[in-house]
Amino acid sequence: MTTSYDDAQIGRARVTETPELAAYYKELEELEAGALWTVANDIEPWYPQPRSVPTHWSYAKLRPLVHKALPLVDADDAGRRVVMLTNPGRRDISAAVGLLYTGLQIMGPGEAMTAHRHQAAALRFVLEGTGAWTIVDGQKLEVGPRDFAITPNGTWHEHGNESPDTPCIWQDGLDIPLVNALDAPFYEVHPNLHQAPGRTVNSSLLTYGAHLLPYGTEGWTKPYSPLFAYPWEPTYESLLNLAKASEGSPYDGVIMEYTNPLTGGSVMPTMSAHIQLLRPDQPTRAHRHTGSVIYTVAKGHGYSVIDGCRYDWAEGDIFCVPSWSWHQHANMAASDDAVLFSFNDFPVMRALAFHREEAYTDNDGRQPSVQPS
Amino acid sequence: MTTSYDDAQIGRARVTETPELAAYYKELEELEAGALWTVANDIEPWYPQPRSVPTHWSYAKLRPLVHKALPLVDADDAGRRVVMLTNPGRRDISAAVGLLYTGLQIMGPGEAMTAHRHQAAALRFVLEGTGAWTIVDGQKLEVGPRDFAITPNGTWHEHGNESPDTPCIWQDGLDIPLVNALDAPFYEVHPNLHQAPGRTVNSSLLTYGAHLLPYGTEGWTKPYSPLFAYPWEPTYESLLNLAKASEGSPYDGVIMEYTNPLTGGSVMPTMSAHIQLLRPDQPTRAHRHTGSVIYTVAKGHGYSVIDGCRYDWAEGDIFCVPSWSWHQHANMAASDDAVLFSFNDFPVMRALAFHREEAYTDNDGRQPSVQPS
Amino acid sequence: MTTSYDDAQIGRARVTETPELAAYYKELEELEAGALWTVANDIEPWYPQPRSVPTHWSYAKLRPLVHKALPLVDADDAGRRVVMLTNPGRRDISAAVGLLYTGLQIMGPGEAMTAHRHQAAALRFVLEGTGAWTIVDGQKLEVGPRDFAITPNGTWHEHGNESPDTPCIWQDGLDIPLVNALDAPFYEVHPNLHQAPGRTVNSSLLTYGAHLLPYGTEGWTKPYSPLFAYPWEPTYESLLNLAKASEGSPYDGVIMEYTNPLTGGSVMPTMSAHIQLLRPDQPTRAHRHTGSVIYTVAKGHGYSVIDGCRYDWAEGDIFCVPSWSWHQHANMAASDDAVLFSFNDFPVMRALAFHREEAYTDNDGRQPSVQPS
Amino acid sequence: MTTSYDDAQIGRARVTETPELAAYYKELEELEAGALWTVANDIEPWYPQPRSVPTHWSYAKLRPLVHKALPLVDADDAGRRVVMLTNPGRRDISAAVGLLYTGLQIMGPGEAMTAHRHQAAALRFVLEGTGAWTIVDGQKLEVGPRDFAITPNGTWHEHGNESPDTPCIWQDGLDIPLVNALDAPFYEVHPNLHQAPGRTVNSSLLTYGAHLLPYGTEGWTKPYSPLFAYPWEPTYESLLNLAKASEGSPYDGVIMEYTNPLTGGSVMPTMSAHIQLLRPDQPTRAHRHTGSVIYTVAKGHGYSVIDGCRYDWAEGDIFCVPSWSWHQHANMAASDDAVLFSFNDFPVMRALAFHREEAYTDNDGRQPSVQPS
Repeated sequence: MTTSYDDAQIGRARVTETPELAAYYKELEELEAGALWTVANDIEPWYPQPRSVPTHWSYAKLRPLVHKALPLVDADDAGRRVVMLTNPGRRDISAAVGLLYTGLQIMGPGEAMTAHRHQAAALRFVLEGTGAWTIVDGQKLEVGPRDFAITPNGTWHEHGNESPDTPCIWQDGLDIPLVNALDAPFYEVHPNLHQAPGRTVNSSLLTYGAHLLPYGTEGWTKPYSPLFAYPWEPTYESLLNLAKASEGSPYDGVIMEYTNPLTGGSVMPTMSAHIQLLRPDQPTRAHRHTGSVIYTVAKGHGYSVIDGCRYDWAEGDIFCVPSWSWHQHANMAASDDAVLFSFNDFPVMRALAFHREEAYTDNDGRQPSVQPS
Repeated sequence: MTTSYDDAQIGRARVTETPELAAYYKELEELEAGALWTVANDIEPWYPQPRSVPTHWSYAKLRPLVHKALPLVDADDAGRRVVMLTNPGRRDISAAVGLLYTGLQIMGPGEAMTAHRHQAAALRFVLEGTGAWTIVDGQKLEVGPRDFAITPNGTWHEHGNESPDTPCIWQDGLDIPLVNALDAPFYEVHPNLHQAPGRTVNSSLLTYGAHLLPYGTEGWTKPYSPLFAYPWEPTYESLLNLAKASEGSPYDGVIMEYTNPLTGGSVMPTMSAHIQLLRPDQPTRAHRHTGSVIYTVAKGHGYSVIDGCRYDWAEGDIFCVPSWSWHQHANMAASDDAVLFSFNDFPVMRALAFHREEAYTDNDGRQPSVQPS
Repeated sequence: MTTSYDDAQIGRARVTETPELAAYYKELEELEAGALWTVANDIEPWYPQPRSVPTHWSYAKLRPLVHKALPLVDADDAGRRVVMLTNPGRRDISAAVGLLYTGLQIMGPGEAMTAHRHQAAALRFVLEGTGAWTIVDGQKLEVGPRDFAITPNGTWHEHGNESPDTPCIWQDGLDIPLVNALDAPFYEVHPNLHQAPGRTVNSSLLTYGAHLLPYGTEGWTKPYSPLFAYPWEPTYESLLNLAKASEGSPYDGVIMEYTNPLTGGSVMPTMSAHIQLLRPDQPTRAHRHTGSVIYTVAKGHGYSVIDGCRYDWAEGDIFCVPSWSWHQHANMAASDDAVLFSFNDFPVMRALAFHREEAYTDNDGRQPSVQPS
Repeated sequence: MTTSYDDAQIGRARVTETPELAAYYKELEELEAGALWTVANDIEPWYPQPRSVPTHWSYAKLRPLVHKALPLVDADDAGRRVVMLTNPGRRDISAAVGLLYTGLQIMGPGEAMTAHRHQAAALRFVLEGTGAWTIVDGQKLEVGPRDFAITPNGTWHEHGNESPDTPCIWQDGLDIPLVNALDAPFYEVHPNLHQAPGRTVNSSLLTYGAHLLPYGTEGWTKPYSPLFAYPWEPTYESLLNLAKASEGSPYDGVIMEYTNPLTGGSVMPTMSAHIQLLRPDQPTRAHRHTGSVIYTVAKGHGYSVIDGCRYDWAEGDIFCVPSWSWHQHANMAASDDAVLFSFNDFPVMRALAFHREEAYTDNDGRQPSVQPS
């Protein structure tokens, strides 16, 4: 049975406006009320109508502008020196897609920021530079290219770049628009402006970076992963290992989730992050799901088709897939793999029972595509 | 230590605009990008800045307008004949407070609606009329005044009023704005327009309405309560019982949560509902928390002070408390109890680790108050 | 395929003893070692081989002996004045079946015991007398005929009978043999010999005896139900309600579990309790499962067939079903219902992934039966 | 306050036997009943009274006898060629300690066993030989010295040794006595005697051996870890890493648990396994807890003091600590670390709320010790 999405059917609001009704609406309005049927079809659409649109940000184009910010603004004055990526449909809330925020942060050689904390959760994916560090709740982490790190909701954090000569650029991902939509933001500047980090660098990695856990971890009651950094080398090795044992997903290739070792679940309660390897041989099939995703090209080049438009991508590029948009990916290299990092709001979708997924069945699972105008 | 909420301090964005920067912003805008520091203090405020404002809806004033809708619009044309309550600050999204929707639905004698389902979860609290029924996923429930019932996310449902002569009014509560904010709405008209209900009326109540559960309930995997209706009499008796055993909460009096008997948790993943009894003797103390609440006066009369304004209420009145607003309640009867029904988005706050709560400590816990202008 | 339970097949130990092997075994024994193959088939049997046997205890026969204990031993000297029921196959560990203990405790008019606590969990099912009370962790409960109450692991408890003239008999159920098998027993006499109970009697019932829970119950972290007593009247009403909405189980009739209102799970981590109603019309079908069960006839008369033997029962009788024994039940009254109370170690079976269940498929699901010799 | 463990106090059974009572006991016995007070103090002891005793098995002494089994019995006839280690106090149930079984299994060059499955869960720790393999539920694993592997409850499994010339010895750990105590054993010979393993060797390690999980693991519903093998090298590296970040436990040194990557919990529902590194510098402090432990010396030499007796150990040795026995460990090497592998029934203790732990406070936390006689 084909579903009809026509609003002119029984079960949908179909009231013909009359002068009498207009007068009635006016009466309602005076009492801070309204008639549901005047908005019902709009607020209860047949399927998601995201205001976000598929968007592709070229690293080649953005990178010079990010570097330009370095001399333009003082880090202390900026709070953070970040070029944020804003979806054409969500400029009002500074979102890159859905209720997710992303941006490119640049730190000059020797720079160090002050410490703060906020209700919003943050994650980082390093694009260039080798001297970056972050102190999260008193724990110093060193991160390099393609490393993934988290700054969970409510943790004190401060960053810096100890390289003597090279700037560092990393991508920030935050749930700021989500926190704001739910009227739950909080922000604090550290009373001492800086934390006093523990003696051991990367201690969360030394402690939780294996499939053995320190005995007695039932003491950890926080809602996020105690492992704060996921270096690139073992991550990439995991992908290669999984590729030996599994065909992977028809929609995503060989895809893994960065997980909380204490729960096997997502690293934070509002955002999850994935890494996926696309083999050179074939494009994936299309599917769509609720939940928004921001992708970063970690390695290789290829393209994605999102709602019928093809977006070509190369290393460092960022693009987004709005909720319920059809999407498929392809590696364009003849013999090398391509790797996409991504983060999303799937933990929210699952916690609220909003997750839904659908395969594209026509045309052997691949959308016909055009280049975006 | 007193926290300073001044943005002119280190740790906040304090960039002085210059022509050079203005030109830079223009360059960024062309790439669907922006400078974080131009919006940082706005999108990362010190504490919640809800656009919703405390609002009180008088049932005495609204009731005539709700009844007026009965002859004005045909139920089939309206979809549902509902006067919705819209917060002055959230008219754009038809929310009563935060991301919660509420409205007053009227059904005439003998009316019956068609069946549909949607991703949004719904709940009902009956205000007047004795013939109301609802069929939820094939299960017919009969509900009377002050009964609470749920129509969980994704369940087929249809309603009606089998009274021969009296209309029924119930309050609807839905998470429509939340579902929309997260780009996850779906809506379907029932293919047959009506369900074929099972033989036994109120079977969920017969099955799950006690502290013994049918053996073998581990088969229930849905994310909501299998108990769909909570009649008033045992609910009120529970309050009276708890009042014998407990002082109650300093902020809320004798307060209970309608719970899922299989989990002890909230009835649905996005909304929870409470019932609370205020003894005649004393006003509660003030507190504030993240999360939005819509209250309905089930019994008695009194007042609430919300962010320093006093709102007097009587049976049938509805009022809301936005996230992080100070609030306290008082029963104004000398010897009778008052009862407030309420629903909220606390399950979302908890699932996303957004819950935060604070007691009002000045003035023995009571806010000084003025009448709203 | 029929499974062969013959040990003379490949995959089972089939070593022929030789003098050489005998000498070898001797060498092993000196090192506190042995050859697995000498015991393998015994310790890894094809299916459960309980040492417990189906046993029926007639209340008509036991009752006079229980009453006889009243003048025979002083309650203080006995610790508890209890006639325990011991399975013929488990006298060594004082178990009634499997690793479960049961007994009939009698308290004379006006008697009160001293307080103690132990790792073993206890439950009570009242058989006769109206004055019984128990104080569990400072909370006084009054219990009458057919009421069910729990004394969870580790809670201080003391009992008494405040009737001026009638003794009270209740059935105790404990997991003592389980606690001992796992080398985990602890026992303490209350330092003051008696607790100081709170002001409100039955406060757990007033607080948790409904499908609304006091708001804020996430504070309860104990591994057992905060509801300590389940009175008979609402329990029986629940059975009658469920009987209207459900056919019930083919094996057990209309069966419910006494549950922890905070979790929907069993009342304690080691034992669960059920109540089941058998309609007059038909016998149930047979099934078997891992886990041991002790039944008490709460109402009516009938019979059960256990591993092919028929046991007739009347009110107050107790009988047991060992793990993996086929069993079915029948109500023998023409028009009245029969009700069985039972408790079991199913929570252990589930926690350890030992649960297994099988339907009896021959003979329309009913075992042919003989009377026990 | 010092607890008195004297049974001659109020709160304990203290009935003086009389001829009248003797006659009464006889009457009870005829009804399969007894008087609780005759056994109460025995079955409800003040604290655990394990029948197991601390026991040490020297690998130097056992190894020749294990090798001797190779020509003595045919593997097919033995089922498994295993020298089991039996606690002097638990020979009746073939347990090494508590309800845990252990043994040393030897497989000759080129040998392969047939496949079976059972309710009992098994684990392996390899002591010598490089050609061992096991196929668990169709998945082939190769294991070498000090590798840890699991054969969860109910999985088909078969083993072999593909070395052309060297036997392999591994330690088996099973919960057979526990399964039997709870009347829940099942055993099946594979219908084809052998499984058809998948193409990829060690696929569980390739799939789950990292802190990224294949996306979509919510499909795994089994009660045990999907990761079946934990090789020695990354395990030892984890210990060395943790030693950099943490002082470790005062009782156990640097101790980690082999965990289920999907839950952060124990690898199987009945048994957990640990690995612990003892630094050369100092002995640990003593503590005791409920739950039984079997230790295997993976590396180095040292001693443990158990209930006041000192047991010296070297690589390959096995020793046990019964429930509630005081124990502490010491590395005897001046500059090298020592590593102990161990497995236990802690998951049972936790699931049943039987876990209890206590530090030894006298003498700076160290027990005075003597050599066992």
